[in-house]
Amino acid sequence: MNPETHLDGLRRQARDEPESGIVEIFNYGRNRDGIIPLWVGEGNLATPGFICDAARDSMLAGETFYTYQRGIPPLREALARYHERIHGRGFDPENFFVTQSGMQAIQLVIQAIAGNGDEVVMPSPAWPNYPAPLRLHGVGPVAVPMTMDEGRWHLDLDRLFDACTGRTRAIFINSPGNPTGWTASCEEILAIRDFARERGLWVVGDEVYSRFYYGPPRGSRMVAPSLHEICEPGERIIWIDTFSKNWAMTGWRIGWIIAPKELGQVLENLIQYNTSGVAQFMQRAGIVALEQGEAFVQEQVARARRSRDRVAAALSGSPRVSFALPQGAFYLFFRVEGETDTRAFAKRIVDEIAVGFAPGTAFGPGGEEFLRLCFARSQESLEAAMERFVPWLEK
Amino acid sequence: MNPETHLDGLRRQARDEPESGIVEIFNYGRNRDGIIPLWVGEGNLATPGFICDAARDSMLAGETFYTYQRGIPPLREALARYHERIHGRGFDPENFFVTQSGMQAIQLVIQAIAGNGDEVVMPSPAWPNYPAPLRLHGVGPVAVPMTMDEGRWHLDLDRLFDACTGRTRAIFINSPGNPTGWTASCEEILAIRDFARERGLWVVGDEVYSRFYYGPPRGSRMVAPSLHEICEPGERIIWIDTFSKNWAMTGWRIGWIIAPKELGQVLENLIQYNTSGVAQFMQRAGIVALEQGEAFVQEQVARARRSRDRVAAALSGSPRVSFALPQGAFYLFFRVEGETDTRAFAKRIVDEIAVGFAPGTAFGPGGEEFLRLCFARSQESLEAAMERFVPWLEK
Repeated sequence: MNPETHLDGLRRQARDEPESGIVEIFNYGRNRDGIIPLWVGEGNLATPGFICDAARDSMLAGETFYTYQRGIPPLREALARYHERIHGRGFDPENFFVTQSGMQAIQLVIQAIAGNGDEVVMPSPAWPNYPAPLRLHGVGPVAVPMTMDEGRWHLDLDRLFDACTGRTRAIFINSPGNPTGWTASCEEILAIRDFARERGLWVVGDEVYSRFYYGPPRGSRMVAPSLHEICEPGERIIWIDTFSKNWAMTGWRIGWIIAPKELGQVLENLIQYNTSGVAQFMQRAGIVALEQGEAFVQEQVARARRSRDRVAAALSGSPRVSFALPQGAFYLFFRVEGETDTRAFAKRIVDEIAVGFAPGTAFGPGGEEFLRLCFARSQESLEAAMERFVPWLEK
Repeated sequence: MNPETHLDGLRRQARDEPESGIVEIFNYGRNRDGIIPLWVGEGNLATPGFICDAARDSMLAGETFYTYQRGIPPLREALARYHERIHGRGFDPENFFVTQSGMQAIQLVIQAIAGNGDEVVMPSPAWPNYPAPLRLHGVGPVAVPMTMDEGRWHLDLDRLFDACTGRTRAIFINSPGNPTGWTASCEEILAIRDFARERGLWVVGDEVYSRFYYGPPRGSRMVAPSLHEICEPGERIIWIDTFSKNWAMTGWRIGWIIAPKELGQVLENLIQYNTSGVAQFMQRAGIVALEQGEAFVQEQVARARRSRDRVAAALSGSPRVSFALPQGAFYLFFRVEGETDTRAFAKRIVDEIAVGFAPGTAFGPGGEEFLRLCFARSQESLEAAMERFVPWLEK
């Protein structure tokens, strides 16, 4: 058999799904000398030692066996307490399901709610890791382009709702959003909830950046406006979340789902048949992150805000650059006048000045002409990147 | 909205897929006083300290960031060397893909090769975690029942091949097999390979128990007969494998796929859109397991063989019990005369004598009237279980 024909032996959706445009530029430039990597959504700080210590202690104490598919009870309880603390309302551990990464949380939610021929509606530009796994399962992602003007990203709610058809199973809402930093207002969240409720649709909320919020203070609430604030019992809302961003644990691959309890057995089965759970020693580290990591989170958020302002100021030095100052998350998504093929442009930036941005082409409709930079990085690397990039733009 | 209707909002395949029959009994009895748990496929030894140390060192050295989606190069190289050592032939690191568990490896392979309306053929009884994820993706698992007679399990190859239709995408072969211990001969493997080659089908080989082999010695080969021995370049064969059994790492959730290189980009994309890779510090532990864990593996296998013989001798003390002495893996799969509803029987055994067996109903056609016990456990617990069970049977 000719191995070149192996691709013909694959399922069409798997064979045809393209590589993530973020991964493509990352792989293109990762080994380039002196590269300043601002392409992926990852801070530059390693996981705090006190979190690693908890994993080590658990591992060496022999917690290396199979464990609860939904997550160990003390982690589910700690997750409920953490959400209570930041949102100022009650949570029940029974609504929490621990997963091998936020990405796996998205996978499981898709497998639970949508299949061949269904559709999921989402604002765009969006993280490529929403539409790709949908397409892999035969689900059509329906992108509703947002627009940037007057220094803000706008979501047209009528357009979002008009995109929902009889085939729609869910609306994905990522707020604060990657890559734009768009952050839904309380009114927008409420309108989406009401629409979805009326139509019996699921709302899938990705609020992984909710702590990275730079909008007006919200009293005792330590987060961006959230679906949690308007979620009533019995609501068809599912959240996906992760330890990656808040506690600098991108490499650990631990996340969680918050879902109605009625879905418990189905989600447990999906966990069983996808990964069969999360290492217990990782879960112990998660508990410590939640319970002892608050100062670290707040420092990270404060640092990100300062970095956002510095990078925004530096980019404003070029008359060719335009952007909306992000209200949340940790990306600056900017356009360079005259540069429309950002896939090629991002490679040229790697080649000529060794700075790594993600091309807007990775993020779908409405973002094609932008570049994304992650500003959750050290001040030195951000300054060096800006010193290379801004003058180069003017050449 | 009435939360009881939430299940109506789920995808049918996800809603209808039953809980694993192994998990069901485990959850039924896990907190029962004095339970001797022989239900799941897990040894009683914690992960060796030298393996944990490698994870700890990596974690504390700051290897807590995103990493290669296919696995870090040194682990892929170590996997190739390990396979070279045990199979006595060359392997190329480019064929290896690290996954978040053997279970996830199965998921990814299914997502790569089969979808709605397709079929996958497999000998039965089989581990429930093959048919369940297939059904979840709309793929029909086609079970070909094996038969036990004269103290051996037999696979009728004609029956296996006759079960392949125009909808068949792959044949799953788990040898040594869970739960029966059935171990394919070289001739059987070759016949399956030839049939699949002729029909352009994939062969998916689950050889995770290949080191736990109790058949005739095979010269320098340290494994059961394997598809690796007859795999030629360009063959449509994919293996799923795991660190779980050989190195007592069940709780870690690390596995790997071995596949034709041509599938590399597709598998990388599937990893990206399912879990986005495996923690680097876990991968460092995997390297140490492969390179320093051989004595541990050999001790485990020798211990399992002794335990198999002791449990077999003890069960032979009851005239009601019949079984085939397993040639591989670490399960004894036995039938008790007069007990046909093993789901109820396994619960009664928990209730009355606090011994945990998995009911044969969990393993599909051909296994319904059997019970499975895992003998990769301590001598004391196996003896105590037999002392409770065998006399109780005769009451």
